[in-house]
Amino acid sequence: MTDHFLARARELDAADPLAAFRERFVIADPDVVYLDGNSLGRLPKATRERLHQVIDREWGVELIRGWDRWMTLAREVGDVLAGRVLEAEPGEVVLADSTSVNLYKLAVAACDARPGRGVIVTDDDNFPTDQYILQGLAAARGLELRVVRSDLDAGVSRDDVVAALDTDVALVSLSHVAYRSGAVADLAGITAAAHAVGALTLWDVSHSAGSIHVPLRSSGVDLAVGCTYKHLNGGPGAPAFLYVRTELQSALRQPIWGWFGQREQFDMAGSYQPAESVERFLVGTPPVLGGYGALEGARITAEAGIAAIAAKGAALGSYAIELVDRWLTGHSFALASPRDDERRGAHVTLHHPQAWQISQALRAAEVIPDFRTPDRLRIGFAPLYTRFTDVHTGFARLRDIMESGSYTAFPAERSRVT
Amino acid sequence: MTDHFLARARELDAADPLAAFRERFVIADPDVVYLDGNSLGRLPKATRERLHQVIDREWGVELIRGWDRWMTLAREVGDVLAGRVLEAEPGEVVLADSTSVNLYKLAVAACDARPGRGVIVTDDDNFPTDQYILQGLAAARGLELRVVRSDLDAGVSRDDVVAALDTDVALVSLSHVAYRSGAVADLAGITAAAHAVGALTLWDVSHSAGSIHVPLRSSGVDLAVGCTYKHLNGGPGAPAFLYVRTELQSALRQPIWGWFGQREQFDMAGSYQPAESVERFLVGTPPVLGGYGALEGARITAEAGIAAIAAKGAALGSYAIELVDRWLTGHSFALASPRDDERRGAHVTLHHPQAWQISQALRAAEVIPDFRTPDRLRIGFAPLYTRFTDVHTGFARLRDIMESGSYTAFPAERSRVT
Repeated sequence: MTDHFLARARELDAADPLAAFRERFVIADPDVVYLDGNSLGRLPKATRERLHQVIDREWGVELIRGWDRWMTLAREVGDVLAGRVLEAEPGEVVLADSTSVNLYKLAVAACDARPGRGVIVTDDDNFPTDQYILQGLAAARGLELRVVRSDLDAGVSRDDVVAALDTDVALVSLSHVAYRSGAVADLAGITAAAHAVGALTLWDVSHSAGSIHVPLRSSGVDLAVGCTYKHLNGGPGAPAFLYVRTELQSALRQPIWGWFGQREQFDMAGSYQPAESVERFLVGTPPVLGGYGALEGARITAEAGIAAIAAKGAALGSYAIELVDRWLTGHSFALASPRDDERRGAHVTLHHPQAWQISQALRAAEVIPDFRTPDRLRIGFAPLYTRFTDVHTGFARLRDIMESGSYTAFPAERSRVT
Repeated sequence: MTDHFLARARELDAADPLAAFRERFVIADPDVVYLDGNSLGRLPKATRERLHQVIDREWGVELIRGWDRWMTLAREVGDVLAGRVLEAEPGEVVLADSTSVNLYKLAVAACDARPGRGVIVTDDDNFPTDQYILQGLAAARGLELRVVRSDLDAGVSRDDVVAALDTDVALVSLSHVAYRSGAVADLAGITAAAHAVGALTLWDVSHSAGSIHVPLRSSGVDLAVGCTYKHLNGGPGAPAFLYVRTELQSALRQPIWGWFGQREQFDMAGSYQPAESVERFLVGTPPVLGGYGALEGARITAEAGIAAIAAKGAALGSYAIELVDRWLTGHSFALASPRDDERRGAHVTLHHPQAWQISQALRAAEVIPDFRTPDRLRIGFAPLYTRFTDVHTGFARLRDIMESGSYTAFPAERSRVT
């Protein structure tokens, strides 16, 4: 039997301008189809070398003298991200803490900058930690957290956000790409609507940074946070980043006054004076190992260019949706992501009542997707190292699992997974 | 000329029960005398191996499946620290964030637990980031930050703290070992005095963890934070830890409500419910590489035992003070640390008007101390890998520098150093 989908995959791979980037990553077991780079990106070979060097030579030999180099790492990574990965200016992005902590710092700073306003707007499709952070802030300050109801397969709608806006809103905080569906929010439209009522915007770009164009400046975005261990391939638990539009930096102060945010830090002055640059949003001693992972990962993305990455991500998703339509809808799968390439990031999610069992069967078959409660199989297409033939192989194994019914042998009850 | 100090050093090294631990660390250049392990500890060989494995195998090969192992890392490190490094119970310590962020979280939690009280007490010898964090918190809440004046060479006095206490004090936050002088604060006495007025205590044990006994439970300490990259040899920017006394855990809530603090995190529930354990003080995705550095470092310290470490640290400091008395007081040095072993951690600090130039001359002579503004030379004695003969060599080189006056060739103006 001729599989014309396989022939198409081979043609697409042959024409892929990013094909050579796969060689830049450690691919230890070629039989594994890794479709979870949107949760933890693969290890770049350059990162492996650099981290060995940081451990063996910089820490092991230079010891404390390594700080002459490490001191500027947070800003160095930020400038790579600002220059080529996000649409931002040098000096607007810095590596720091976790996404959650950064969201807290910037959300507090934003609310402080809008005194007298009593509302934060988010949506129920926002990533859980974002919702929790905002719940905590609202509880601490007696603010109203106004939660827009979103279609969990289609993402947050600009109109629904607009309907929640009024002049009592201090901050609108949403995700650029939805973690479940991959739906892309209307960054510019929502930001403009928030500005129209005098509110600030704080976007979580964890799922868009390194996978699609993130037009922060041209959309007028005030604040953003994001993580580096997904499409930026920074490594497990690599530090997060934050973005503060230049024009706002001097007016905003974050609540956690740490020594890395202090002007002339090593004067060890007794009184806190925030740095005049984006470093004022730093807090404590930065994680050096994770930071070099983030640096090397950001560099590869910058080198490939976000336009090529976004185009390939869309094409991989589109190809996958064709396979879903042809092979899987008869097996009770339903698309849980936007069908339109323009409205989707670099992952595609499927509903299935037995999604948890199926995800275990896939792992056993060396296909690694993500499960998301209660019934979603999330399939990521990291454009730097995922081939169209990988998508074909992964979906062919999924089809086999469904046709054989082998997934029913796996536990129906879920244990802890990321 | 017979140098009886050298003979003594050799005898002390020969009798050192911890001597074999030096072999467990990477010592790349034996001519370098490293006296800054209290700022950045050396690289343990086990850590080098483990980190290579985490990078190459766990991240590189296991990919997202690595999280099955990494999920419990924060608690695993905490339990090693609680069991053998700090005097604490399993489940009271967890690895998280930076020291500064942890201090913020716990200070806010403490103030929330003492509503109606308007004062935080600290001292002007507390580490700058601690002072800044408390300043930020006081400013945000309209609290008074009551700053006890300490003798910067002798540390904070219990009596001075007591004089600052009244029933309006919510929190007393101090460092256990002073970062400048190495002076040990009266942990039990100050904690008892704070409790007598109904206040909570939050201790920064960054300079004591891994260097001296830290009797958290028997002193009744409520809360503590500390870093792992000094005497715990966790590596540059390794994550910090926090301690919350079991009896307080359910009553305290920290302000940064992140998904790693959530009960049943991967249910991705929309509403934040803090975990019932010490994990409620976690926030975002933990730094895995830094976390394994902290784990291996903590294990070595636990294996050596804090009693032997503390005894050797005191002996190294005592020996160094003898050399200061004999060789350096004629060159305008003055001791900036307590002379009494019981009152001093594992570092000794010296005043000298040209301390900055001298610290540069020492680096050029392959002796690595720390400079602390404006006139302090801080000399650390990491007991796990510092020999008495190293101290002798370092101080002999310092004496030569002073006798030759070679330090005057170095810049008098300071640039950025850690």
